[in-house]
Amino acid sequence: MLRAIDENTITDAAIEQMASTPNPRLKQIMEPLVRHLHAWAREADLTPEEWLEGIKFLTAVGQKCTAYRQEFILLSDTLGMSSLINSLHDKRATEAGTKSSLVGPFYRQDSPPMKLGDSIVTKPSKGLEVVLYGRVTDSTGKGVANASVEVWQPDETGNYDLQKHDPSEMDLRGHFHTDSDGRYYLRTVAPLGYMIPMDGPVGDMIRAQKRHGYRPAHIHFIVGAPGYREVVTALYLAGDEHVDSDTVFGVTESLVTNVNQKDPNAPIPNLPSIKFDFKLAHATAKDMTGRVGADPSQIVKAGA
Amino acid sequence: MLRAIDENTITDAAIEQMASTPNPRLKQIMEPLVRHLHAWAREADLTPEEWLEGIKFLTAVGQKCTAYRQEFILLSDTLGMSSLINSLHDKRATEAGTKSSLVGPFYRQDSPPMKLGDSIVTKPSKGLEVVLYGRVTDSTGKGVANASVEVWQPDETGNYDLQKHDPSEMDLRGHFHTDSDGRYYLRTVAPLGYMIPMDGPVGDMIRAQKRHGYRPAHIHFIVGAPGYREVVTALYLAGDEHVDSDTVFGVTESLVTNVNQKDPNAPIPNLPSIKFDFKLAHATAKDMTGRVGADPSQIVKAGA
Repeated sequence: MLRAIDENTITDAAIEQMASTPNPRLKQIMEPLVRHLHAWAREADLTPEEWLEGIKFLTAVGQKCTAYRQEFILLSDTLGMSSLINSLHDKRATEAGTKSSLVGPFYRQDSPPMKLGDSIVTKPSKGLEVVLYGRVTDSTGKGVANASVEVWQPDETGNYDLQKHDPSEMDLRGHFHTDSDGRYYLRTVAPLGYMIPMDGPVGDMIRAQKRHGYRPAHIHFIVGAPGYREVVTALYLAGDEHVDSDTVFGVTESLVTNVNQKDPNAPIPNLPSIKFDFKLAHATAKDMTGRVGADPSQIVKAGA
Repeated sequence: MLRAIDENTITDAAIEQMASTPNPRLKQIMEPLVRHLHAWAREADLTPEEWLEGIKFLTAVGQKCTAYRQEFILLSDTLGMSSLINSLHDKRATEAGTKSSLVGPFYRQDSPPMKLGDSIVTKPSKGLEVVLYGRVTDSTGKGVANASVEVWQPDETGNYDLQKHDPSEMDLRGHFHTDSDGRYYLRTVAPLGYMIPMDGPVGDMIRAQKRHGYRPAHIHFIVGAPGYREVVTALYLAGDEHVDSDTVFGVTESLVTNVNQKDPNAPIPNLPSIKFDFKLAHATAKDMTGRVGADPSQIVKAGA
């Protein structure tokens, strides 16, 4: 039965042709994708030239990706998609926990195991030394003993170890475990914010939109314990001028804290402190990781 | 002012950050893109793992592109986006004309100039010889003299010259001009349909959706004349088993014709014939080309 295809009937035609998809979840994902992409094209009244510009842009994004650079994740981040996916992930928890934030491209597995109180600063640093501490609790506030706390961050100039050293040398990363009351504490330096990589097509987009391209100062965490939902998140420093305009929308109110010059509760005296507590929801059978973009090398490998 | 980001507030946050875009058209395109992408993610309730699969897929599509292969256009085609963009293009005309169809990846500029009645078959062929003819008229049915008619097509096995020969040798392509009454006629062979390139990520998607991957038999045209809107289109043969299920949604009712064994009006006697008329709308100041994907090499060059 021949149909007349126009800018409206094409949507059902495309969805009908995909109706043979055996995987019900794939079908469930593709059907609204087609509907929303088509609705966008109609709403924007895209011309062939404009869509070709879009095709060129997406091609350039794909071609910018390497084992060390994931430009599509950067695009996802800068369009707010990664933040949205994190929020949907949080919403599926059956108990409220610490909100997720972007894992970013600088996470490394196998960061060095450390003891509570150790410093993650392993290279000479001019940064402001601080104590970073808090508690990992369940949703009722009860401490979670021996919880895994992985921490990584940029230095006082806004650079991660991967951007400065031989990649085999780690700095400003550590893997801690909480004490019997769920406490963690360590020494580090206050981080600086930084600009996202601006030398690719996503940078071109950010400039075309006259956005500043900065992320506010933050410290990354992955926190988990057996029986609990792992949380991938970050704390953000209140004083940063970009704390309310993060280019990748990782900041949310509940993740903002500050450097406290005089904190009588800090576990290491005579140092400024950053305090941040984590609340873990109990895991359910369906829980999976929230690490969007944890490993660019795997993605390009799979993609190539 | 710090905001609480969740799966709903993220959308306004992203759109507000893009409000500084100086180019009003870019802003007008990006705002609904963000809204529809986000609405899709919410509606599909995408998980981080699923979105990462999507990122991997898009990366693979970008990395498959070369100067001779445009996998993102193939993705656009197979999602119905190219067809939709063509329909929007047609709708912007101030007069009704022949409907656009996909230009596809095999168009070449500078096809050989030919005289009416010439054959575009320049290599030995086992195909069914036919006469292809019709008229180019304006929207009132008045013939357009000296209109440019570029034609290109696959052979009786479903292959274009670029898939068979040294790329410097052209076959089954020609550039004609209509006579004083708007008539064109030429000799060729009846084309066969073919499968889209299935060796890339788009092929993986088509297989995952259990779609057949075929395009029905068709002949491509670009028809234009000074003062008229150029039309990029194709005719489709009614007998093809995939004429109602084109993988790239190029077929629409008005573009379907057939091979006529006995046509007393055919300008070359004793040959089966394919008749197809074109109606050109007058051009307006805003008219631009409808050649989505005409030149993959330009795209990758721009993209790289």
